Amino acid sequence: MKADPLTDFSRLCVHTITTRGWKLDEAVDQYAEAGVSGITVWRQWLEGQDPQKSGERIRAAGLKVVSLCRGGFYPALEEKTRSQSIEDNKRAIEDAAALGAPLVVLVCGAVPGQSLSESRKQIAEGIAATLPLAESLGVRLAIEPLHPMYAADRSAINTLATANDLCDELNHPLVGIAYDVYHLWWDPDLEAQTRRTAEANRFFAYHVCDWMTPTTDLLNDRGLMGEGCIDLRGIRSMVERNGFSGMIEVEVFSNRWWAKPPREFLQEIKYTYLNHT
Amino acid sequence: MKADPLTDFSRLCVHTITTRGWKLDEAVDQYAEAGVSGITVWRQWLEGQDPQKSGERIRAAGLKVVSLCRGGFYPALEEKTRSQSIEDNKRAIEDAAALGAPLVVLVCGAVPGQSLSESRKQIAEGIAATLPLAESLGVRLAIEPLHPMYAADRSAINTLATANDLCDELNHPLVGIAYDVYHLWWDPDLEAQTRRTAEANRFFAYHVCDWMTPTTDLLNDRGLMGEGCIDLRGIRSMVERNGFSGMIEVEVFSNRWWAKPPREFLQEIKYTYLNHT
Repeated sequence: MKADPLTDFSRLCVHTITTRGWKLDEAVDQYAEAGVSGITVWRQWLEGQDPQKSGERIRAAGLKVVSLCRGGFYPALEEKTRSQSIEDNKRAIEDAAALGAPLVVLVCGAVPGQSLSESRKQIAEGIAATLPLAESLGVRLAIEPLHPMYAADRSAINTLATANDLCDELNHPLVGIAYDVYHLWWDPDLEAQTRRTAEANRFFAYHVCDWMTPTTDLLNDRGLMGEGCIDLRGIRSMVERNGFSGMIEVEVFSNRWWAKPPREFLQEIKYTYLNHT
Repeated sequence: MKADPLTDFSRLCVHTITTRGWKLDEAVDQYAEAGVSGITVWRQWLEGQDPQKSGERIRAAGLKVVSLCRGGFYPALEEKTRSQSIEDNKRAIEDAAALGAPLVVLVCGAVPGQSLSESRKQIAEGIAATLPLAESLGVRLAIEPLHPMYAADRSAINTLATANDLCDELNHPLVGIAYDVYHLWWDPDLEAQTRRTAEANRFFAYHVCDWMTPTTDLLNDRGLMGEGCIDLRGIRSMVERNGFSGMIEVEVFSNRWWAKPPREFLQEIKYTYLNHT
């Protein structure tokens, strides 16, 4: 029997940061009770936890671990800081493996005042340095291109084209892309680059939320699906035409939504997932 | 005798919105006294004024009128609103001619929820509809690509490549580009697109300010040159290698700077123009 599309949450994944008020155990119980299928765990939610036990707990609740968020932040002015970042990324990969997450999402980093081309070089070196470990543990790495408004200090990878270029350069089957509509929706080159992403088998993750007008905060004023101007149905249809059939991950940073009870927010997530995504 | 580079303000132009506390007459007097060479007049500063007399006043003070800011905002859901926008743009072109401004800067517009490709089509139609008037008055039109964070509601032209594509489509010697480092600095394609802009003789204007980290407001938290992370010297050197030798226009929207006395701000503009631009 085919799933009823109006109640089908088999591809709905929620990021723990979206329901920020809940600790990991609470999020797991609430997601499972609500019928959510997948969870992307942010690293802060693992602090003080045994990741292997957390993974067992998540799977016992019937949820799929979709990814670990996030590694990255490779660039730095000092060589020592770059080495520390690589060590931290190795820990993220180990934690992902222990948790049973097949994927680490990478917010690649940038340094105010350092050229973006230098940062991109350091990002490539940083990812390359963690690839042997990722291989030995079978963990995939997803480069997430970030909106150009984060180019100063969060990522020097600001378009899908640049992410694809970096993947080409690293040329490794474990390195792919986390595709987030918030960062990419404006790009006039999106269709061609989506095809390129899919054809290279590097469409590793798909994140949704919405773009508010006005946006009152660069970091924490994302909209829930349908609240903003992103053509969510159009982009989803495009990525699915290109073969993507993975989880739809709801990743909303919003001071406005975080001020409400997480249970209420989760109901809205389910509703807008079905009706606007 | 060559101008002393340490006191040479022959290419310094200031936008009236930068020193927002001053009305037009006051800005003209203060700029002239400070040795600023050019002024870009924002349309609000012409309200209730005779633009021709304003132009005469500006020239009598020894200042060059660099451009009129701004036309644009062509896209709209309703045909009637689009027609009104075209009429308003014609008024801007007439005011520019009366003022003696050789150029109108275009912030092209976007409509939340309307596809960016539809908005781009409406922008092309809107500009085309004003070209006969621009021709008859000899006024140039400069498409200003805006940072992607303004794609929802301020401009569907978000990269230098898209601005160049639109210029190609309109294919008219009066249509070119206003190049603002704030909007463009992050673009990995900047060097190639700068060359393309210059080779097509459409490098009509150059605006400077800086990108703050963090940026606390999407509209009015620009930095003064040197306060932020933009490689202003590198970009200027690149555009000059490509043949640009026009005015350097200081366009800073900043609640922080606007809270200070404009005279103090103007001194800082002169200092940072010489030392960081």
